Amino acid sequence: MIRTHEAGTLRAESAGQTVTLTGWVARRRDHGGVIFIDLRDASGVSQVVFREGEMAERAHRLRAEFCVKVVGEVAARPAGNENPEIPTGAIEVLAVELEVLSESAPLPFPLDDHLTVGDEVRLRYRYLDLRRSVPAKALRLRSEVSRVARDVLNAERFVEVETPTLTRSTPEGARDFVVPARLRPGSWYALPQSPQLFKQLLMVGGLERYYQIARCYRDEDFRADRQPEFTQLDIEMSFVDQEDVIALGERVIGAIWRELADHDITAPLPRLTYADAMARYGSDKPDIRFAVELTELTEYFAETPFRVFQAPYVGAVVMPGGASQPRKQLDAWQEFAKQRGHKGLAYVLVGEDGTLGGPVAKNLSEAEREGLAKAAGAEPGDCVFFAAGNPNDARALLGAARLEIGRRSGLIDESAWGFVWVVDAPMFEEAAAAQSAGDVAVGGGRWTALHHAFTSPTAAWIDRFDQDPGNALAYAYDLVLNGNEIGGGSIRIHNKDVQERVFSVMGLDQAEAQEKFGFLLDAFAFGAPPHGGIAFGWDRLVMLLAGLDSIREVIAFPKTGGGFDPLTAAPAPITAEQRKEAGVDFKPAKPAPQAEAAPTQA
Amino acid sequence: MIRTHEAGTLRAESAGQTVTLTGWVARRRDHGGVIFIDLRDASGVSQVVFREGEMAERAHRLRAEFCVKVVGEVAARPAGNENPEIPTGAIEVLAVELEVLSESAPLPFPLDDHLTVGDEVRLRYRYLDLRRSVPAKALRLRSEVSRVARDVLNAERFVEVETPTLTRSTPEGARDFVVPARLRPGSWYALPQSPQLFKQLLMVGGLERYYQIARCYRDEDFRADRQPEFTQLDIEMSFVDQEDVIALGERVIGAIWRELADHDITAPLPRLTYADAMARYGSDKPDIRFAVELTELTEYFAETPFRVFQAPYVGAVVMPGGASQPRKQLDAWQEFAKQRGHKGLAYVLVGEDGTLGGPVAKNLSEAEREGLAKAAGAEPGDCVFFAAGNPNDARALLGAARLEIGRRSGLIDESAWGFVWVVDAPMFEEAAAAQSAGDVAVGGGRWTALHHAFTSPTAAWIDRFDQDPGNALAYAYDLVLNGNEIGGGSIRIHNKDVQERVFSVMGLDQAEAQEKFGFLLDAFAFGAPPHGGIAFGWDRLVMLLAGLDSIREVIAFPKTGGGFDPLTAAPAPITAEQRKEAGVDFKPAKPAPQAEAAPTQA
Repeated sequence: MIRTHEAGTLRAESAGQTVTLTGWVARRRDHGGVIFIDLRDASGVSQVVFREGEMAERAHRLRAEFCVKVVGEVAARPAGNENPEIPTGAIEVLAVELEVLSESAPLPFPLDDHLTVGDEVRLRYRYLDLRRSVPAKALRLRSEVSRVARDVLNAERFVEVETPTLTRSTPEGARDFVVPARLRPGSWYALPQSPQLFKQLLMVGGLERYYQIARCYRDEDFRADRQPEFTQLDIEMSFVDQEDVIALGERVIGAIWRELADHDITAPLPRLTYADAMARYGSDKPDIRFAVELTELTEYFAETPFRVFQAPYVGAVVMPGGASQPRKQLDAWQEFAKQRGHKGLAYVLVGEDGTLGGPVAKNLSEAEREGLAKAAGAEPGDCVFFAAGNPNDARALLGAARLEIGRRSGLIDESAWGFVWVVDAPMFEEAAAAQSAGDVAVGGGRWTALHHAFTSPTAAWIDRFDQDPGNALAYAYDLVLNGNEIGGGSIRIHNKDVQERVFSVMGLDQAEAQEKFGFLLDAFAFGAPPHGGIAFGWDRLVMLLAGLDSIREVIAFPKTGGGFDPLTAAPAPITAEQRKEAGVDFKPAKPAPQAEAAPTQA
Repeated sequence: MIRTHEAGTLRAESAGQTVTLTGWVARRRDHGGVIFIDLRDASGVSQVVFREGEMAERAHRLRAEFCVKVVGEVAARPAGNENPEIPTGAIEVLAVELEVLSESAPLPFPLDDHLTVGDEVRLRYRYLDLRRSVPAKALRLRSEVSRVARDVLNAERFVEVETPTLTRSTPEGARDFVVPARLRPGSWYALPQSPQLFKQLLMVGGLERYYQIARCYRDEDFRADRQPEFTQLDIEMSFVDQEDVIALGERVIGAIWRELADHDITAPLPRLTYADAMARYGSDKPDIRFAVELTELTEYFAETPFRVFQAPYVGAVVMPGGASQPRKQLDAWQEFAKQRGHKGLAYVLVGEDGTLGGPVAKNLSEAEREGLAKAAGAEPGDCVFFAAGNPNDARALLGAARLEIGRRSGLIDESAWGFVWVVDAPMFEEAAAAQSAGDVAVGGGRWTALHHAFTSPTAAWIDRFDQDPGNALAYAYDLVLNGNEIGGGSIRIHNKDVQERVFSVMGLDQAEAQEKFGFLLDAFAFGAPPHGGIAFGWDRLVMLLAGLDSIREVIAFPKTGGGFDPLTAAPAPITAEQRKEAGVDFKPAKPAPQAEAAPTQA
């Protein structure tokens, strides 16, 4: 090693030692001919002193982020000059040798913890950004998260298997990235959206316990905070039921939060059924860190004279203290609803004396006004928001309003970890709904899989899910943290007949199913074991654990909007030669023309 | 869990317990109405007995590889029926319940340990192949190798970082796979040949210790036993010299062999300079498990009358006992040389009485004949092979002959682990030589990097490597095991000026260098630390550790020749819609036509 010590490790006990340090000039201060620098390496910072005379002379050329090697003697700082805020604050290093390992040009932005430049600039110089403490800590935390998860899984005899990434298209609700195969012109590989099919094949292969921290690829339109490549902790087990997978998930999550957030989760974690999550929180990923819930008032308004509430579903959510909102803020709520594709957000204000205000109140019957606050769970001074219409849409609006209420009113305990499993999910959703959310439906039918096409119906539904796809339930479970889905999985279908019936509901006929997933269906013909698994979204999980608000912050070299990498300027044009070599424009040779049309032969 | 016990864990002490097992029917035997099956799961095998009557009746339908659940009582086997060859040989399970979890169609091949079907069939049904013990063990071993390596690196505070795989082309001697970017039509990502540039950027970013078990991609012509995607353990460190990286490499390798092969390597491992490896073994990856070495006889034949030996280099290798080879075998050696592009392989046979035989001997002078056996290190009864010409070509032929001698004569100790570092490699090789070996030269110059373009010259050469590129040495080191390169690395250039001079030797001018590697050169302007690293070829390393002879055997879902996956039939054609969406055929809009030709503006 070029150095003998790491800068951040020196303590009062080190005084008197001669040390060689290497690192970066984090700060330089001149005090009457004496030069002080903060020398930073990965371990921390030490103050280095260049006394008057030749050493100070040589230190004069040091600028921010020069990479240097310093030999010096560790000394206790003069009394009164100690800095109790840093671990090395008791000492300083009196330099006797200085070597500039490499110079630095003026920085494009100062390496402060409070950075004001935009992501494009910051990511273009990501190698400078990473010298700041927050990004550096985020990458180190991510590494630790992977270590802890692997320790748990290795101890439970899981086998880490690397599955292929140059493979066949495995439609899972998004577009595939494709790669031309030079050696088979006209053919393309696809980058996997997940290792789903391979991990199932490993179960058919008798592996029993599989995991992988796997790179996955989805060619999406880069909706908020998505990346074209992302990472998941991918797990699959044989001979298990849903409880086994959930318990394992809790052991993994429990170890991560215990070791890295000093937080003991109380296993078993709370659970909500999908139906309850929608009814009570208006979301399949409820933020349970605050108590506000939706109230269903469909019955309550069964006889209402108010046209808007004559709907298959009427629900409400209460904003505590919301009656005192200024008019402007109430208007902003209308805008909030409109941006989500709704006409507006009906509300009543509950006066301190219990009388109802706001434009809706006067449309209600006397009896409805009378009991409304109680029915909605509102107190004097609260505001009640309503949504009416089809249950899914109305609940989604109320769920969004609920979150906004939590944020605006400071109801969310930011120090809490709100874990909850959402279980008993439906097998299918209407394909039209999935498509309008930007997903790619796998089959051409009315129904598409809510999780994915390989999810097993529950025992109660396995014989009749195709008769009532809209109500059929699956052994599917999502782990939600603070309103974010951080994991999801299911018990899989392991039976060819069931799998084909699911494909059929999705509008995939046998020929199509065979063409797209034939290798999986074939595998099911050879004694496939019952199996199930889970995948954790590693980027989002680490982001939440780190207390950061974008997955970009926990990815070493993330892409910005549109999948662009400001650092390398990828993607970029390729040369005509590369294009030719890759076989992108390969045209299959036409069959030789024949003198006359030959009869088709059987 | 569906089961209570794992089949392979039952012992004599388990007798009397009621257990539920799950697994596959490995074998079924009928003995006068009683049916025995070997029930196999990932842990091993237990014998299950279905006694006469109803249970035997139901077990009648069981066929090979049915997946079943059995409830039964563990009992000691009747005296004389124990099987000491398996861990569960003392017991059997008397079945009281049987459930077929899933049936199996007749197998395409029997799941024996000695398989005779070809790779295409075996890989098409890889999920059946993986139920065999050798492939299953190989995957488990691979997982363990990764675990042990990570344990070493985590303990030394290395940070595991995931680098991007949708990135910019980073020419490193092979073709890139490219991926069309739908959101930037006409632009393409490249899949990385290695994380090389990103790990160097992480060092510039102050990370100091990085590792990753990284997927890498090279679009090669699938020479013997290559895969389009492969894995390496990728390591980089700052403020280190070559000795630090080599010592770390030995700690990683040492831990793997100690824990998984029960073999203590003696650190430090032996080293050879590149020049010595070529001179003594005719190879930059010498198999040191047997003592035969090349002898240089250029001086010896300085005055030779034999035209063929009037060459810049003459060398020899001895085949012990080779004088008694039949004529046919001596002819086969000529064929051996011809297949390697040489005219033949000159030889002399040393008779038991010391006289020389073979066609070459009579062309030599009396004095040459006299001292030849001694000069070549041959004993009576040996055969001496010669090669003459330019040193590289001649040594390569003798090196290949040496290996063949080792194999044919049984000189290789197959139980030995022949580790050796090859150090002091040249910086450059002639581009023509690299290209004829199938590599893609990065620049257009006469010289190309032997390792890669980011390898630092040694201190002795750093100021003058560009004046004598053919002799300049690098801080580059390869780890060789049993004649296979399993790792390689170098101290990197961290100085923009040096990097540009290296590019210049390779025929890359400043503009091209900036276009291809600008982001790295830019990074070097901001205080880049001295750094270096190493990468281990994970597929090959695991293959050797497992004692297998193809990397396909240690990859879960490998591809066959031409990059084809017999299981999923990837690569495959894409639809016209996919092609259109991916923007493959995007043509940039032509500038609008103008009324008259405008003069070019500066």
